[in-house]
This record gives sequence, structure tokens and C-alpha cells, in this order.
Amino acid sequence: MQNSSFPELNTPERTLLGPGPSMTSPRVMRALSAPVIGHLDPEFLRVMDEEQQLLRLVFQTKNELTLAIPGTGSAGMEAALCNFIEPGDAVLVSVIGFFGERLYEMAKRYGAEVDRLERAWGEILDPAEFESALKKKNYKLVALVHAETSTGALQTGIPEIAAAAHRHGALLLLDTVTSLGGIPVEIDRWDVDIAYSAAQKSLSCPPGLAPLTVSERARQALAARKTPVANWYLDLNGLEKYWGQPHAYHHTAPCNLHFALREGLRMVVEEGLEARFARHRANAELFWEGLEALELSPFIPLEYRLATLTTPRIPPGVDDAETRRRLLEEYNIEIAGGFGPLKGKVWRVGLMGYSSRRENILLLLAALDRILHG
Amino acid sequence: MQNSSFPELNTPERTLLGPGPSMTSPRVMRALSAPVIGHLDPEFLRVMDEEQQLLRLVFQTKNELTLAIPGTGSAGMEAALCNFIEPGDAVLVSVIGFFGERLYEMAKRYGAEVDRLERAWGEILDPAEFESALKKKNYKLVALVHAETSTGALQTGIPEIAAAAHRHGALLLLDTVTSLGGIPVEIDRWDVDIAYSAAQKSLSCPPGLAPLTVSERARQALAARKTPVANWYLDLNGLEKYWGQPHAYHHTAPCNLHFALREGLRMVVEEGLEARFARHRANAELFWEGLEALELSPFIPLEYRLATLTTPRIPPGVDDAETRRRLLEEYNIEIAGGFGPLKGKVWRVGLMGYSSRRENILLLLAALDRILHG
Repeated sequence: MQNSSFPELNTPERTLLGPGPSMTSPRVMRALSAPVIGHLDPEFLRVMDEEQQLLRLVFQTKNELTLAIPGTGSAGMEAALCNFIEPGDAVLVSVIGFFGERLYEMAKRYGAEVDRLERAWGEILDPAEFESALKKKNYKLVALVHAETSTGALQTGIPEIAAAAHRHGALLLLDTVTSLGGIPVEIDRWDVDIAYSAAQKSLSCPPGLAPLTVSERARQALAARKTPVANWYLDLNGLEKYWGQPHAYHHTAPCNLHFALREGLRMVVEEGLEARFARHRANAELFWEGLEALELSPFIPLEYRLATLTTPRIPPGVDDAETRRRLLEEYNIEIAGGFGPLKGKVWRVGLMGYSSRRENILLLLAALDRILHG
Repeated sequence: MQNSSFPELNTPERTLLGPGPSMTSPRVMRALSAPVIGHLDPEFLRVMDEEQQLLRLVFQTKNELTLAIPGTGSAGMEAALCNFIEPGDAVLVSVIGFFGERLYEMAKRYGAEVDRLERAWGEILDPAEFESALKKKNYKLVALVHAETSTGALQTGIPEIAAAAHRHGALLLLDTVTSLGGIPVEIDRWDVDIAYSAAQKSLSCPPGLAPLTVSERARQALAARKTPVANWYLDLNGLEKYWGQPHAYHHTAPCNLHFALREGLRMVVEEGLEARFARHRANAELFWEGLEALELSPFIPLEYRLATLTTPRIPPGVDDAETRRRLLEEYNIEIAGGFGPLKGKVWRVGLMGYSSRRENILLLLAALDRILHG
């Protein structure tokens, strides 16, 4: 046993301005480190109950079936799909970036016949394109990403797309990973059936939980399944009986992550959704102004550009990896590079939750200026 | 927005003596609350690398494919099954308690033809029974629980069972949720192919991660699959490429839980496995002596009784739920009741990791004495 090879944990303090995780407030970290308690302790069940109420406020929904999946955002995505897909079901997936691809890949693993509604990365779809695909075939589920973390594009027209899905008897599944808590997400008003997010983006909590909400319409589809959900851990039948009555044991809940998420959600509600969205927008605009001054042009047009995630084009002659390495090593700032077709072409800068503060933006702009023009 | 309904988090401090979660040391909690850093930050990849090395020491294995699944113990169980089962595969599951039942249920969801090797809850199987079942049919996988958390029984003879499985061309899967870090688990010497555990038992970390290790033999079986793993989040192909080279993005790792697990594992290695097992054994014996003095008889014979989890019989006339309620409310002590056929018949008392301390045992015995005989 060589203790000497494993010194005390010694991690750096970063200014996190990538696509997530975001920074966490000291309040959230204090909640995180409350003593561990049992997953069936009445005091813990109370925490979960409050977390559920807070999640409904943040998702702007009355959905009874609203909870946090005990895994990261991708587990939330998988829970949103696996509970509503049976082998052979027809599913329509919008693919306009990396996370649309992931939806497609996961849906296929559950035996769905998946069709793609596709556009180049960085573009968005018109609601009419959904309508026209829905006319051609009977889909059980239409799945799309609200805020594409790989491109920085906001898919607009969600209420129209939801209405089209419902006209044709399909459920609407919306990935709100990079939108919830940072830009408007109105589950009930938009009539979205299934939505999930992640704790570590605009909710600014440590990663490891994925908020999820399910409409009555989707819940009935779950109840009408002919086959068991093909994923045990993410089966909402089991999760629902743990979160609600009879509070039957399902898994040993990661209590500290729930403590933290409850506090992060409480901070969202305390700030107020409208004020929070306005802060994210104002800070994004401050950043965009600064980018202009640095002659860095945003990849996504203003019209559908995300306030939570900006993707400036990397200027010709600038080394992507080297720039990010210097930001990290010299200034302790994390931003991310692009994926797939956008690799080497854009950076991804997240301004979400507790990371969305003027001081962080000024710091990043100044550091970029020194590296690019210093 | 009604802030008043969501006050500051105010959870109790419990002496956790149930089947998990266990208590955590202050060192683990300090590690837990280190600042969030990115899942691809070189400093975080270093933490994961050290965690992996520590996991190998604790599992007593050289297995390259050793990591922590980003979910609770049940996600570890599901990862251990879903990666090695394709539809139609024959699987043999030992069912001698609740978690054997769960293995059976999960294996079925992945389309396996599952046979049960069954005994009454609280009993264990003889290795010869595995051998005789393996002679009758070609199984791809034999799955069993080492330490049955629902009964307190230790399945002995693991090396013999593994040898029988291998003689007949099957892989051996072992649930070490309630054994790893508290009683001997020797993956390489016993020749176990797939084993998983949970962070919150004898490793005494907050719940939310499930250590997993996979032998070369099992890894080859994974590589030889004809169909994709039916579970995206738990697919070891994706997880392995994130933990090791090329460190490709898979999910946003719950960094704080990894910080905590690394520290908990470091404490295991620092104490030394042999010393740690001896501590768990000595404390269990102290507890058993105390039970005798209280005229509470252990359900499981000494011969295969777990040191990590004891299941005293509830004496006639004693109210199970009321006794546990009083322990919790009057003394802040958590123990658990029995499941299924053992409901109302036994209590489940865990003495694992940081919970396994003499002061906790004396406190529990004194509180039980006051409630039962006071």
C-alpha cells in the first residue's frame, strides 16, 4: 500500500465558462456538504418533496411526474426516451447538432424506427418541416433539442412544433439541458410532453442529477406500454413510487446532490425566472459586444443565438487547442472547443447560472485579448 | 414565487447504522465540496486516473477496465449485466434474497433467458449446486450476490463457484455492494469476471457512484458482442473511452462525487485492507455480544454471517416500525427493517466503513436497551 502516490486532493479553482459544468454558488456548496442521511429518512423524503415542487416552478409546469433522475444529463436523455419507446415504435428526431445525434443513437438502441429531420450544424428547423414530416408517417414520439450545446443555436417555434406533434398523435420530447433556468422554458404553456435538463448548466449545481418532467398525456402512454421499460434504473414506474407514495425503495438516492439541487433551485426561484432570464440575456449581450471589439464573430445569427452559450468563430491562423490551453493554464479559465464538423472552427463559451456574471465576462475578454493580440 | 415555503436546508445529523448509506468521514466531506471543475479538465482526468488506481487496490485486481459508474449501486448492477447480455443469452442467477431478485429482474429486461438457483432468504448455496446447474445447460453468465444486503448472509465459496463457471465457459458476475472495503473481496485471486459495488457502503462515501471492474475474459466477451449494448449511459465502450485514452466526452462526470470517492478510497488504502477487515470483524463481534446481552438473536448463523450487516430477529411482541421510529426520533439513529419475507421479522444493522466504530455500537445497544426494556 503506497500512500505516498496518492496525496491529498488538490484541485484548482477554475472560472468555468464552457458548456457546463457551470460554477456553483457557495450556498449550493454548503448544501452539498450537509451530512449524509438515509434515502428513506422522513427528513430526506421532505427534501425530495420540496425539490419536486421547486422543479415544477422552474419547468413552469403542474406535471405530477416531475423529479430528478439519479444520473447526469445523458441519463436524463435516456430516461426521456426509454420510458416512451417500445421496439418498433416510429420516432422522429431533429438532428441539428451533436445532441440531436445522441437522441437518434439512443432511440435506435431501444429498438425504435428512427427518422431524422436534419439540417447543417448551426441551423435550426422550421415548424413547418415537422408538420410535413408528421403528415407522411405516424410517429409515436418527436424528439428535439431546445438549446443545442454543440452549436449555440436555439430551436425556436416549440409551441408550434408541439401543436403539430399533437395534431398527428405524437408526443413531444424536448431537451432543455442548456436552456432550463437560463432562458424561457414553459412546459405547460408550450404543451411539451417530456422534458429533461441537467443540474450543472443554468441551474448551477454540481453535475450528477437530471431534472425531468412528464405530462399526463405521456404518463398515459407509459401506463399503456405492452412491454416493460427496457432500462431498469431509469424506469419511471419504479422512480415514481420512490419519489411519491408509497416511497418504496428503488435506489439509494445521491442525497448530497439532491441537497445541492434543492438549494440551486431555491436560488432560481428567489431570483425570479424573469429576472434570471434578463440577467442571462444582458450578460450575453455584454459578451457579444466584447467579442465584436475583439473581432471575433459569433457563428450563430442573433435571431436564434443562445444567451446561455455563445460560439465565436476561431479566426484564421489562431490555434484552437493552444488558445484554450493558455486560458486554462495562465488564467484558470475553461472554455470548450467545437465538436464534429465544428471542431477547430468555433469555441463554446457558456454563461450559465452562477457563471453568468459580469466579472467573469470581463476577465475572459481581457484574457482572450492578451492571448490573441498580446 | 413563494420563497417562504422553501426555507434554508435544515437536515438532521444521524448515526447511520442501516444497510447504507453509511456515515462519511470529515475528510471525505471536505473532498466532496472542492470546487466544481470540468469533466475534461486535465486536473480532473488526473483525479479519475488516481481513483482508478485506488479502485484496483481495493478490488485487489489488475483489471485495466476498472472505473466508477456514474450512478448508484443499482446502476452498477445494471452496467454489470447489460454489457454482457444479448437477447437470448442464457443466464444463471442465484436468488437468496432481494438483490438476487433484482439481478434476475434486470437480466430479464435485457432479453436474457434467465434460470434461477434458489434458496430461502437467509440461506446460501453450495458451490456444488452451481456446478450441477452448469452441467445441465450452457450459460453465458452466472450472477450472484456476495453479501446479501436483505438477509445479512455471506455467500461463501466464490473461488469454487468461479472455477465451476469457467469450466463450463460462463462468466462470473459478483455483486460486492455490501462487501467491498469491509470484508475480503479478491477479484483476481478468486477469478471473478465482473464485480460492482457502491460508494456509500463500506467505502463510506456519499451515494451516487458504483465501482465496477471487468476481467480480460469479460472484456473480450464485450468486444465479441453482435448487437450494441442496449443501454447507452452504461455502455462500457463509451465509458472506457472517457476514463482512458482518448478521454472522449461521454457524460459530464459528477466531479464532486469522484473527489469524495477518491478520498474514501485513499482512506481505505491508508488504513490497509487487512486492518480494515479486522476492524469490521472486531466491531461486528462487539455488536453480536451486545445483542446476546439484549437477548436479540442473529438471524444468520455465525458461519456465514456478514460482519458488515447483522440482522437480529425482532422479538415477539416488539413493534418493528415503532422501535425504528423511536431510534430515529429520540436518538437520531437509523437502522432498517426487513424486506419481503423478512419484513417485521428482522432488523438490518450495518456497521460499515466510518459507521463501524465502537462508539456507534455502544450507543445503538444502549438505545435499544432503553426502548425494549426501559
